[in-house]
Amino acid sequence: MAREIAEQPAALARTIESLRPERTALRKLAADRRMVLFVARGSSDNAAIYGRYLLEVHAGIASGLAAPSVATHYHAQLDLSEALVVCVSQSGETQEIVETQAWAAERGARTVAVTNDGGSSLAGAADVALVTQAGTEIAVPATKSYTAQLAAMAVLAGALAPEPEALDRDLDQVPDEVERLITQRAGVEDAAEQLASTAEALVSGRGIVFGTALEAALKIEETCLRPVRGLSYADLRHGPIAVVDAEHVALLLSAADGPMVSGMTDLAHDLDNRGAASVIGIGGDDGFADAVDVHVAGPALPELIAPLALIVPAQLIVETLARRLGLNPDAPRGLNKVTQTDPSDDHEH
Amino acid sequence: MAREIAEQPAALARTIESLRPERTALRKLAADRRMVLFVARGSSDNAAIYGRYLLEVHAGIASGLAAPSVATHYHAQLDLSEALVVCVSQSGETQEIVETQAWAAERGARTVAVTNDGGSSLAGAADVALVTQAGTEIAVPATKSYTAQLAAMAVLAGALAPEPEALDRDLDQVPDEVERLITQRAGVEDAAEQLASTAEALVSGRGIVFGTALEAALKIEETCLRPVRGLSYADLRHGPIAVVDAEHVALLLSAADGPMVSGMTDLAHDLDNRGAASVIGIGGDDGFADAVDVHVAGPALPELIAPLALIVPAQLIVETLARRLGLNPDAPRGLNKVTQTDPSDDHEH
Repeated sequence: MAREIAEQPAALARTIESLRPERTALRKLAADRRMVLFVARGSSDNAAIYGRYLLEVHAGIASGLAAPSVATHYHAQLDLSEALVVCVSQSGETQEIVETQAWAAERGARTVAVTNDGGSSLAGAADVALVTQAGTEIAVPATKSYTAQLAAMAVLAGALAPEPEALDRDLDQVPDEVERLITQRAGVEDAAEQLASTAEALVSGRGIVFGTALEAALKIEETCLRPVRGLSYADLRHGPIAVVDAEHVALLLSAADGPMVSGMTDLAHDLDNRGAASVIGIGGDDGFADAVDVHVAGPALPELIAPLALIVPAQLIVETLARRLGLNPDAPRGLNKVTQTDPSDDHEH
Repeated sequence: MAREIAEQPAALARTIESLRPERTALRKLAADRRMVLFVARGSSDNAAIYGRYLLEVHAGIASGLAAPSVATHYHAQLDLSEALVVCVSQSGETQEIVETQAWAAERGARTVAVTNDGGSSLAGAADVALVTQAGTEIAVPATKSYTAQLAAMAVLAGALAPEPEALDRDLDQVPDEVERLITQRAGVEDAAEQLASTAEALVSGRGIVFGTALEAALKIEETCLRPVRGLSYADLRHGPIAVVDAEHVALLLSAADGPMVSGMTDLAHDLDNRGAASVIGIGGDDGFADAVDVHVAGPALPELIAPLALIVPAQLIVETLARRLGLNPDAPRGLNKVTQTDPSDDHEH
């Protein structure tokens, strides 16, 4: 896992470079489409959540997350003749995603596959395949394949926006920012120590970085075998915040700019007032850094692109925490690399 | 809370009767619309998840959940001229929902408000208001207002389906089924005892009853101040299942029929094999009842309508568990009845 975290600057640079030429094909494919639907599970689903916000906020196209069981179990007769359906799967072989893509095409959708394997079933059947260039990922927890998916989301949303090059300059900075965060590791050891010391953790973020919060929660849970809840800022405030007590560590993620920083800073103060054992913050601005107990440096990137690097300090924390807990971060208990939702679909690739 | 749970048969019967005449207006409003987007938070969001599945599976209309921050914080310029936007809020006064409805109308959407207060801002501004007839709800945890929202979802999906009366017979059985479950309470005390005895709980369901699982998790968390994770069957299998150990109680919800029962039964066996402290099952068929450690009776209703009654045993368990833990189920710590996402929006109604 540590090696694959370190490979991300190169993986991101390769992926961005190799996907940019697909913009013309993507624009053509989406020309008469009114909505974008993402289909994914696990880490890929967290990448899709970023894609969904970016499509709406940056490209102005109504987007959402499809429920695969509507296809695989209910065989719903939806009219998808105005939809672009984007299926995201690292292996390109998760059975329910492959099935849902076939169903969507039958229902009139145009399809885009985002996968790390250009020879996979998913890539082969899609109208356009965005093949990420993460290289082979050996550790079970997705790291470089996840950030490469985020790069694919940024290229896709850029391609469908009125000005396809608007994100280019910021995207080009990503590999260096990721490299800097990996080298500096500012705050990582402290954060892992706080997480190791308590039984309950919750992770929160909002808007463009909400998917990053869910991904950080999933990584802690899968790799460190801790029960963790990943909640949007809004859902946390709307009820579950009542549970916070001295047993809880909160991990908050924020971009350095944008409309969410002040709310995340308020949330840090509020969690502190409610007696949380510790509030760890990744990223944000100076006010956010002051509001948290342990601050972990985030990327100097604008909010729309920040998720590509903001997850990296969380990956470093997870890898450090797993080792501290005596666990093997490369092969967590009870998980396989190619995940299948239904046991009958289990097969390796 | 106990009294309001008991009022549900009457609240459901009133709501179904009073909303059915709105079907014509709903069909007219949606005639040229290609997708339905739901906007909600908390329990209302869990009702919206049911609405979303039912719209897709029963009515065959592409549906999804909107992210309110796309409107309230990013002011995205989406084209919603083919969308029907359904805002769900018990009070009809949650500020971000009211704002999102206004934004959607400006962006070309037709709007439906689902609220328990016909005089609310949300109802006043909507093209069609579906006013639920739950009566005043005093306890902070939503019970009768939630099931009344589910009834509104069933009327909405029925109205937009090819045969608007197709769900009527099943809907008419709901009040009696809810009454039976409240009177019999089969398995409720045992389930509360199991939940009281362990620190970690997870709740799972799939497809049409996925929202019911999330609502059960939210109720346990808000009312009993236990950290609980609500996960879809698929998301649970895709990673977090690795965390399950002897500290965990699992609560599984299933309809009595439909394509999900066998998978939920397999999941019960799998959780047992992974050493979960206890697996509690609500509903399902005989095979499901045999597979769980503690079985709680569910409704004899077909899957599409089951959520209206399947949550009731979970409500009874939560109320019992809260009292067993020495908590007041009517007024959980740290929550208000009218919930606002951002502190600056706080106001009472």
